[in-house]
Amino acid sequence: MKKSFGAKTLIYPTPVWIIGTYDKSGKPNAMTIAWGGVCSSQPPCVAVSIRSAAYTHGNIMERKAFTVNVPSASHVKFADYFGLVSGRAVDKFSTTGCTAVRSDKVDAPYIQEFPLILECKLHNSSEIGIHTHFIGEILDVKAEESVIGKDGLPDILKVMPILFGPEIQSYFGVGQYLGKAFSVGKRIK
Amino acid sequence: MKKSFGAKTLIYPTPVWIIGTYDKSGKPNAMTIAWGGVCSSQPPCVAVSIRSAAYTHGNIMERKAFTVNVPSASHVKFADYFGLVSGRAVDKFSTTGCTAVRSDKVDAPYIQEFPLILECKLHNSSEIGIHTHFIGEILDVKAEESVIGKDGLPDILKVMPILFGPEIQSYFGVGQYLGKAFSVGKRIK
Repeated sequence: MKKSFGAKTLIYPTPVWIIGTYDKSGKPNAMTIAWGGVCSSQPPCVAVSIRSAAYTHGNIMERKAFTVNVPSASHVKFADYFGLVSGRAVDKFSTTGCTAVRSDKVDAPYIQEFPLILECKLHNSSEIGIHTHFIGEILDVKAEESVIGKDGLPDILKVMPILFGPEIQSYFGVGQYLGKAFSVGKRIK
Repeated sequence: MKKSFGAKTLIYPTPVWIIGTYDKSGKPNAMTIAWGGVCSSQPPCVAVSIRSAAYTHGNIMERKAFTVNVPSASHVKFADYFGLVSGRAVDKFSTTGCTAVRSDKVDAPYIQEFPLILECKLHNSSEIGIHTHFIGEILDVKAEESVIGKDGLPDILKVMPILFGPEIQSYFGVGQYLGKAFSVGKRIK
């Protein structure tokens, strides 16, 4: 039996990603989002939704670029903090001690301490309700060497990304391996 | 030291969600996606990207509606299967034994056996590279009573959603609780 919860953004999982931008003066900023996801394979693109009131919103509009920074479970306090305060009021890199590094491909900073980052140039933006839906074209993915597995790819269990649960407002880690994609379902005919 | 991987859709985590639709004749279909995410709080909306070749693509265009079905870890074989075969060729509900239930609010079926589902009407669609980016307005969220926690909300550790790792092409479960959102970061000043 299913219980109805009405019209809500109640779905699991959503990611915890930190958006890196520069403001007009070149000050780096970092803002946490959970409303986002990959949206195209070719060109590789990621979508993130941000309210117009956010300092990051103006930065993306100005610089036409952002980074997506994937925190590890050990960074959960930083990840939460980046979503609690505005870059208009404080320099979040100073308060956290995190290091802003200029991207190679786009006009935005990434967070050196985080294990996996995407450098994105703004592809386009559109308005959906109270959010602006920014589509970023992924120009480069960078991963810390310490999280790269035997297959040469970033190991999700070393990256240890954080999940957000909307409504329950809680963070969770990644759990056990469940199977190989495009494989475990072949047993059903 | 960071290693560059180039322009790829390589980011963690992405969700494993099953899109439920009806075709022209009323046959229910289910298709797995990982390119998606919440994209607006008000109105509550979710974005999913689907290639035009997919049977589901035509169904959404025709019916202007879809459901998002969240599988549990125990459904991983079904979740993989729904992404391996086309609804043009087979009736995936027959082959899996899953039950298609007509939604209350929209012209699309949901999967009875899955613990959490969203009923969405098509808000708009746009083209991004080889994908169509469908924005669905969430008209209702339904959760199985067995996954509802003490706080009256769906417990993510009972829902046990599946994560997909792009490039590594593997499925993972949800792991340990890491902390309360809008709270654990308050210790940083």
